[in-house]
Amino acid sequence: MTQDALVIFTPSGKRGRVALGTPVLTAARQLGVDLDSVCGGRGICSKCQVAPQFGDFAKHGLSVAPDALSPVNAVEERYDRIRGLAAGRRLGCQACIMGDVVIDVPAESQLHRQVIRKSATERVMEMDPATRAFYVEVAQPDMHAPEGDFQRLAAALEFQFQIKGLAVDLEVMRHLQPTLRKGDWAVTAAVYQGGGAPRLVGLWPGLREAPLYGLAIDLGSTTIAGHLVELTDGRVLASSGLMNPQIRFGEDLMSRVSYVMMNPGGAAEMTRAVQQGLAQLATALADEAGVPLADVVEAVLVCNPVMHHLMLGIDPVELGQAPFALASSDSLDLRASDLGIAGLAPGARAYVLPLIAGHVGADAAAVALSEAPEMRPDLTLIVDVGTNAEIILGNSNRVLACSSPTGPAFEGAQISAGQRAAPGAIERVEIDPATKEPRFKVIGCDLWSTEPGFAAATAATGITGICGSGIIEAVAEMRMAGIVDASGLIGSAEQVGSSRSEPQGRTHAYLLHDATATGGPRIAVTQGDIRAIQLAKSALYAGARLLMDEMGVDAVDRVVLAGAFGAHISPKHAMVLGMIPDCPLEHVTSAGNAAGTGARMALCSVSARRAIEAQVRRIAKIETAIEPRFQEHFVAANALPHATAPFPHLASVVTLPDVAFNTGGGDGGRPRRRRG
Amino acid sequence: MTQDALVIFTPSGKRGRVALGTPVLTAARQLGVDLDSVCGGRGICSKCQVAPQFGDFAKHGLSVAPDALSPVNAVEERYDRIRGLAAGRRLGCQACIMGDVVIDVPAESQLHRQVIRKSATERVMEMDPATRAFYVEVAQPDMHAPEGDFQRLAAALEFQFQIKGLAVDLEVMRHLQPTLRKGDWAVTAAVYQGGGAPRLVGLWPGLREAPLYGLAIDLGSTTIAGHLVELTDGRVLASSGLMNPQIRFGEDLMSRVSYVMMNPGGAAEMTRAVQQGLAQLATALADEAGVPLADVVEAVLVCNPVMHHLMLGIDPVELGQAPFALASSDSLDLRASDLGIAGLAPGARAYVLPLIAGHVGADAAAVALSEAPEMRPDLTLIVDVGTNAEIILGNSNRVLACSSPTGPAFEGAQISAGQRAAPGAIERVEIDPATKEPRFKVIGCDLWSTEPGFAAATAATGITGICGSGIIEAVAEMRMAGIVDASGLIGSAEQVGSSRSEPQGRTHAYLLHDATATGGPRIAVTQGDIRAIQLAKSALYAGARLLMDEMGVDAVDRVVLAGAFGAHISPKHAMVLGMIPDCPLEHVTSAGNAAGTGARMALCSVSARRAIEAQVRRIAKIETAIEPRFQEHFVAANALPHATAPFPHLASVVTLPDVAFNTGGGDGGRPRRRRG
Repeated sequence: MTQDALVIFTPSGKRGRVALGTPVLTAARQLGVDLDSVCGGRGICSKCQVAPQFGDFAKHGLSVAPDALSPVNAVEERYDRIRGLAAGRRLGCQACIMGDVVIDVPAESQLHRQVIRKSATERVMEMDPATRAFYVEVAQPDMHAPEGDFQRLAAALEFQFQIKGLAVDLEVMRHLQPTLRKGDWAVTAAVYQGGGAPRLVGLWPGLREAPLYGLAIDLGSTTIAGHLVELTDGRVLASSGLMNPQIRFGEDLMSRVSYVMMNPGGAAEMTRAVQQGLAQLATALADEAGVPLADVVEAVLVCNPVMHHLMLGIDPVELGQAPFALASSDSLDLRASDLGIAGLAPGARAYVLPLIAGHVGADAAAVALSEAPEMRPDLTLIVDVGTNAEIILGNSNRVLACSSPTGPAFEGAQISAGQRAAPGAIERVEIDPATKEPRFKVIGCDLWSTEPGFAAATAATGITGICGSGIIEAVAEMRMAGIVDASGLIGSAEQVGSSRSEPQGRTHAYLLHDATATGGPRIAVTQGDIRAIQLAKSALYAGARLLMDEMGVDAVDRVVLAGAFGAHISPKHAMVLGMIPDCPLEHVTSAGNAAGTGARMALCSVSARRAIEAQVRRIAKIETAIEPRFQEHFVAANALPHATAPFPHLASVVTLPDVAFNTGGGDGGRPRRRRG
Repeated sequence: MTQDALVIFTPSGKRGRVALGTPVLTAARQLGVDLDSVCGGRGICSKCQVAPQFGDFAKHGLSVAPDALSPVNAVEERYDRIRGLAAGRRLGCQACIMGDVVIDVPAESQLHRQVIRKSATERVMEMDPATRAFYVEVAQPDMHAPEGDFQRLAAALEFQFQIKGLAVDLEVMRHLQPTLRKGDWAVTAAVYQGGGAPRLVGLWPGLREAPLYGLAIDLGSTTIAGHLVELTDGRVLASSGLMNPQIRFGEDLMSRVSYVMMNPGGAAEMTRAVQQGLAQLATALADEAGVPLADVVEAVLVCNPVMHHLMLGIDPVELGQAPFALASSDSLDLRASDLGIAGLAPGARAYVLPLIAGHVGADAAAVALSEAPEMRPDLTLIVDVGTNAEIILGNSNRVLACSSPTGPAFEGAQISAGQRAAPGAIERVEIDPATKEPRFKVIGCDLWSTEPGFAAATAATGITGICGSGIIEAVAEMRMAGIVDASGLIGSAEQVGSSRSEPQGRTHAYLLHDATATGGPRIAVTQGDIRAIQLAKSALYAGARLLMDEMGVDAVDRVVLAGAFGAHISPKHAMVLGMIPDCPLEHVTSAGNAAGTGARMALCSVSARRAIEAQVRRIAKIETAIEPRFQEHFVAANALPHATAPFPHLASVVTLPDVAFNTGGGDGGRPRRRRG
């Protein structure tokens, strides 16, 4: 037997020779193996559990003797007695290497464990949280060497964990002395290492067993949605949302910017409102997860530029006018309390993703982080539909981004019977091409309107209107059934061959449902509704087309629909409308709440933060407002699906009736620009 | 003529060859010459004025031709027309070197100009402020490159002034966009470079002509005193003080610590009180100086440890009991708003000097900075007398520090007729050794009480009591006149030979002044008063003696009395009492408000901050509370001046009567310990 031994760690495959008697944890550190430890190797935290492997390992050319590790010692026995140690497991800080050995590091002992995300791209997410817990024993005060308690804590963290130059906020400092004494000079310190000096953000007496938590928040114009995440493994413990309290100052962003411009102090008022919303959401999430709010050490936030500025207390007036100058575009590393999020760990941090441009926000950056088009050779078009659509186009060569002013029609606003997606809203529509009769589904009921029991099932909610995905399906179905022509005109009852086409002034409306018998509304798709959808979809298409021009392509390989709305859009109907460029229908997918996913990735990983910061600098920004070709694309995209562009993949699935109802009258669907 | 020329800068003497056509400012930078410039060399700020010298310079072996500099150009002509340029002066950024030349940099063009401090040590103070103004022109927003306004400002500061990695607080960010537009993309940025990342603390549209200001604040238990200082030249524009509003929670520190221990929320209450006091002082100073409060970009604070913790919102309870553990001992670099000082520049910083030990505060560190005993070969004893005395002993070899619990007797508390130093208080006393008759002066009147007109001059204030310096002189004069013996006993009328010695129970009191005729008090020095002074001075002496033991000496070369009180103590009387060790009387000097001076030095110079931080780490701390010899020294020091130590220098000036009044009764002047 030699004076050293070969040790092979699995699953990493890292190997090397270490001196006999070396603890497994020390060997792991020497060989760069990812083995967790909160207590720094003192047999306290049990985070460094390993599973030694014995016997013959032909592929390693190694035979591991039963005595390749030192016998189970008193520390391990005590731990097993009190907490229980699974069979075959050892504490890496106690078991010493006495001969050639193979050591398996189970997933839960890996600090940077990999978590498979359930997303469209199924990318692996590496855990690399900015804030980690460290158990330290701190020297007691000494009148002859009167360094402060904080200095002795910092020295302990430096000595035991090589954390140099620890910074601290006053809020944390205020808890320091009682916590050190309560823990009898042993404490668990939460240290943030997300950039800049490492920073003490929270402190607990003794060894803290519970994990630390973080918040991933998607601050939208309408809703604020968040997840409470366990920072050790990325698990989501609670998800919740609330209406953005700023709604009372204006439904859409432009009306809020106007409010600020018209009302002195209005920006501050809105900042208070949104900060209160954030605080409320944090409390709700902690309650739902059943964890103390004070155990939350970090928040990551994504939002559009106007919400970004309002959240930070910056007057967003510049974002309401060209050149749409951001006050600051880089990512921000703040105190959570700077954003009014109270009650978290006293030094809790808040990280805000970078903004891509004046109309392409941190939410779009989060989508870019989550979908990572730069990691694929094929060309991906990512569309996040809201009041503004954020559009990203790219592949491993190049990534472009722009924003397009779709307006709120896709969200059911500006639609005569439009409403928010809520129980009672029509969300799906089918029209029989022969009879021109519709059937539909409403939110809150799984039955089609033609199925038995539908009336009873919807009696409670009623049938109250039509939501965003409903109007898209309705218009697309009307086009497929020959009720609407390519120019967007609704035919008369005579032209269409159905009394559901009702005259309405000089135009017509298609009656979807008459609920007046039960005290409800008459729900029809009017010519005005079609025009509103045409404006919105033209803006969306024109933005995508502008990026395609810049990229020098006429087609994309795949389309990803991001956002909650994207999850409910039917790809076929979207393509019938010409909302998105033609491509194989099976390559149009939904990414769900990609912005929220991006926020969670940034929460779980410092490297993800650095990656999106670098990527945002690389993304080429196209400003639609000043591109002369935008207007041209916008006009051509007015037709359903498009005046000039061929839609070959769509044509292979759907044949659109070649009807034309223009009798010389009617409006021309003049495009107009909107911002918000 | 060669392609380069020799340039010699005075007064620095720096010299070198530069290419012909090089602007003087550029040459100065190349040669490391200290030449100010706010605008970065664009002929705007005029800070870089120089005085070129022409003719023969034998000592340099140089003859400077009249055309050694380029002719006055349009920029300089315009500047001269509008603002006036003194004869012989050129703008360093415009005048180009065309031949060998001698360039004088006048004091006002030097960035790190030297200012002679009017202090005991007459040390030169180097201006090296942490916050400086930079004039920059910022690129306008561009929709094709949508970096934020802040990023473009940071890029301009990096490009023009090599300021890398600029940080910013949200408070400053909120002002950014309107200021940039008001200044038409030219702004003056105040950048703090006192440690860590450079930080934008304030922003003004266009070129800011006025200097930036800072506050140097000495936060004492009783009073908060501050100076408003011009950060370019260190000039004090205003000095003011106010009562510490915490007084209402307790006169001395220990009673405030008790208040905190007895009252939940008491610490927060006191923090609010002192922060309000700081804010009030800042406003008063700006008003007095006639400068906008928002032009103040920095504050430097010094204080004792208890005030330090209370100011920061840290419960000071640990400072009330052994081992007197500080929460944090290092210097602090904070937002001024963290200390409740509102209305300064939005990102204004606050620097707090390091603490030396649990009883030796940042105020003592400021005294150490101001007096710098480590820079002298002779041994200096520095005594800052307050409720606690901070004592520093050192020379260029070694510096020691301790604190001694003198109690408040030196401030007139615990004295029967004691009062604060205010008009009407007796502050000086003389007693005729033959007649035993006193004469005295009161604050607010320059006449001795025996001089004509005294009664009239003091009619308004009355004669109301005796202040700290008054009681010291009174007791010392009583000792010199043989009214008090070496043990501190007051003799009877018979023993003393004066009816002013009046019986009072089993002891006697010496009547200084009977104001009852005019409705005032009878002001006497009682036996209890003498005991209180003995306790205080014994503690002070014992502390000093302990440091001398540690240093291995029996005498010191000089004594510096720091603090406002120190300025009013008569060295002879202090030595008769044995407050301080014997030394040549002419070597006992007052340093005035050395703590305030130290705060000003730290305000004006980053290197002073780094120097005192390093020095505090080097200073050896002696904790009097646990030194067994302290008690021994304390008892021996009870006698006037001392039971055992010879006072040869005192004896050469004063002969103390060899009287003894002990008749077996009376109290023994038992020492007791006090903290506060």
